[in-house]
Amino acid sequence: MTRERWRSSFSEWYNEVIERAQILDVRYPVKGLYVWFPYGFQVRKHVLGVIRRLLEEKGHQETLFPLLIPEDEFAKEAQHIKGFEDEVYWVTHGGLEPLNVKLALRPTSETAIYPMFKVWIRSHSDMPLKIYQVVNTFRYETKHTRPLIRLREITTFKEAHTAHASWEDAEGQVREAVGIYKAFFDALCIPYTVSRRPPWDKFPGAEYTTAFDTLFPEGRTLQIGTVHNLGQNFARTFGITFENLKGEQEHVYQTCYGISDRVIASLLVVHGDDKGLCLPPVAAPIQAVIIPIWFKGKGDEVNQEVARLKDELAGLRIHVDGRELRPGNKFYDWELKGVPLRIEVGPKDIAAGQVTVVRRDTGEKGALPRAGIKEGIERLLDDIATSLRERAWKEMESRIAKCANLDEAAPILKERGGIVRVDWCGDEACGKALEERLDTDILGTIEEQPKGLCAGCGHEAKHVIQLARTF
Amino acid sequence: MTRERWRSSFSEWYNEVIERAQILDVRYPVKGLYVWFPYGFQVRKHVLGVIRRLLEEKGHQETLFPLLIPEDEFAKEAQHIKGFEDEVYWVTHGGLEPLNVKLALRPTSETAIYPMFKVWIRSHSDMPLKIYQVVNTFRYETKHTRPLIRLREITTFKEAHTAHASWEDAEGQVREAVGIYKAFFDALCIPYTVSRRPPWDKFPGAEYTTAFDTLFPEGRTLQIGTVHNLGQNFARTFGITFENLKGEQEHVYQTCYGISDRVIASLLVVHGDDKGLCLPPVAAPIQAVIIPIWFKGKGDEVNQEVARLKDELAGLRIHVDGRELRPGNKFYDWELKGVPLRIEVGPKDIAAGQVTVVRRDTGEKGALPRAGIKEGIERLLDDIATSLRERAWKEMESRIAKCANLDEAAPILKERGGIVRVDWCGDEACGKALEERLDTDILGTIEEQPKGLCAGCGHEAKHVIQLARTF
Repeated sequence: MTRERWRSSFSEWYNEVIERAQILDVRYPVKGLYVWFPYGFQVRKHVLGVIRRLLEEKGHQETLFPLLIPEDEFAKEAQHIKGFEDEVYWVTHGGLEPLNVKLALRPTSETAIYPMFKVWIRSHSDMPLKIYQVVNTFRYETKHTRPLIRLREITTFKEAHTAHASWEDAEGQVREAVGIYKAFFDALCIPYTVSRRPPWDKFPGAEYTTAFDTLFPEGRTLQIGTVHNLGQNFARTFGITFENLKGEQEHVYQTCYGISDRVIASLLVVHGDDKGLCLPPVAAPIQAVIIPIWFKGKGDEVNQEVARLKDELAGLRIHVDGRELRPGNKFYDWELKGVPLRIEVGPKDIAAGQVTVVRRDTGEKGALPRAGIKEGIERLLDDIATSLRERAWKEMESRIAKCANLDEAAPILKERGGIVRVDWCGDEACGKALEERLDTDILGTIEEQPKGLCAGCGHEAKHVIQLARTF
Repeated sequence: MTRERWRSSFSEWYNEVIERAQILDVRYPVKGLYVWFPYGFQVRKHVLGVIRRLLEEKGHQETLFPLLIPEDEFAKEAQHIKGFEDEVYWVTHGGLEPLNVKLALRPTSETAIYPMFKVWIRSHSDMPLKIYQVVNTFRYETKHTRPLIRLREITTFKEAHTAHASWEDAEGQVREAVGIYKAFFDALCIPYTVSRRPPWDKFPGAEYTTAFDTLFPEGRTLQIGTVHNLGQNFARTFGITFENLKGEQEHVYQTCYGISDRVIASLLVVHGDDKGLCLPPVAAPIQAVIIPIWFKGKGDEVNQEVARLKDELAGLRIHVDGRELRPGNKFYDWELKGVPLRIEVGPKDIAAGQVTVVRRDTGEKGALPRAGIKEGIERLLDDIATSLRERAWKEMESRIAKCANLDEAAPILKERGGIVRVDWCGDEACGKALEERLDTDILGTIEEQPKGLCAGCGHEAKHVIQLARTF
């Protein structure tokens, strides 16, 4: 499979594939807002299915809060409002009348949810409280917008919010959330690095932020998930208290964590190639497409076999492409749309008691015996997932470099992008100078001990940090 | 089962049950906006599962359009904007800056979707185009708001939009949509009447509107679904044309149809009683709750049997209530929450090779043999659905009266509410006078031939109309 255009002209590839594979229509008449095509919507549905299952296995309950947040609630947490004030959409009129209190379109839902936590939580026994919702959120982006990556309406915002009776429990929840997101990205075959964002880049109002980033072929990283330990900050602002075991009122400890449409962007980009998408089976609207190969006089025989085959594959997401087109045209369409497996059934296959299978990820062509076909196809789909995951990880890891100093790091970042790791002293001024000198961003610290001196100032190093150009 | 409070003090019953059964929290700090509790969210999910299945069986594809509609698109269809201008929320600011073009929060999505239909549809072969979405929509209600019934954020708006190559095809689609909604309300055991709304009450921009109404215990009807034949009105406004079989450009023919949170309100109200909710099994988050009846020294035996029973009932939505509470307290909780079936397992049941079952709808207590228990429970759940449906229909039908004249109709509407049917000439002025004299609303015409003269003016009758006080 070729990945030349995919690698060298990312924007062109991305815009073209997203439209032609019918993920999103970019022609909606407002900047930064897009329309989900039915095919794209199905991808989104399957991705959400995975995260819902993982969250529910760990006791999160789905709920739904209003979109509109009154200005007074929204402005309560000083850092939070400061972090969002430039990008909040405001509703000022209802009908022809001005509203008494302006309403914010949620950019995120802390200030909608936590006033309710205040009335829901009374005692120790009401916790842990673990809820989530999947909603649309809004950011008035002034930068260049891009489908699924930088949006004004984030259509797929999964946010979880939890409350706990102790700092330790909240820390445990952060670990659980990181574990859930790892399992989620693993299921989607998306590689990631986990960093603790530097304090000046944490979520407004949080104690600290742990973030997941993946790497795009053109060399920049994309933030695809964040987990925040909020400590007691929001609890103090919103007056969320509980009666602890000593009978005293104490503020709760909170965490929140979110993912967005960017996960779907990564799914498309990380596995794509010059022919289009290559979807991991778990997220594919069609896991295998059956193409009948008709020969004169053998049409009925082929069609009957295809119908039997489809029945036997019940439970998998199968589509039979019975259009009156040349097989080659059909192959082209389904390759563009990223269907993981193509099954061809012609008279020769029937005679040989087999089906012909072609993998989307490698282009490899082979045959599977007709007997026990469902197990055969399932195994092949598992193989595809495994090899997509391994390839993607290998690609990302080959572009992570540990550098001893900035002279080593600078040309790498300049020429091929990717992620560099250097030792760092932990000082904010030094960190910001580092970012400026390398014309790049600190993703954050990783769980690894530094071995040398700070690459920025030469003083004692306390952390290893990751740097990359980011979307 | 008692239905005194349910019948006589509807508002009190409704507000109390919606909060205590944990459907919605009404304490969100903005009028007309509510929070879905996890339990309520599950009811909503199962209801949406039913309508999604029905729509997809008939070839509708799910999609998702932006919430924000630019003022110029929104204002294009004159009747449409006129119908909604008093109730649209306007976003006027992004961050601290005023926007160049004001953005409406969709009150419904015709003006978001049809500009895309214009680019999607080229020829006859692109139709029928049948899509739907499930979204939040907004209405700036100035009247008294009420959870699920009159909202400012409609959180559960399922809207379908279709385009066709002929008026006849659009008419066929209206019939299909009416059939889908009948199947949907039948599945939820909600009785309905179908009326064609009078012209002055049709959807703004439609040729005509067919509506579903149900009847609440306090005597008023609630609109729970509408189907609109839009003719070519929006197609002309948005320039949606196709090349017809003669090779000419022609405007497409459109329909749209929607349901909202009100379906869930009906589900709760129609089947409820003085103990709380009574959910039909298809919509119940818990279809059967198992209560272990512990006796001294028999705890383990009971728990083991309960675990085995739960395993055997896999596939049904079962909850085991293992809380350290008296059984009576548990019964009370699950009756309030409307769980259709309670299963009690105690040492006597085990000894007798049975389980004790109690129906929520009738309170009837009985025993089912332990062997073949899953089939037994499934049959019982089906019986519950059937009897809920029959009871609800009977109740509604007992409150529909055909009246020969207004002297007959007036006391009925005044004393017990419900629906009255009278013959009508079809004249708008006469219809509106009728509404005023009876202090009620015309729901619309039904498919029945009039036999007498118009109840309003005494002239020749052309239709039979339904009248009721409405929410």
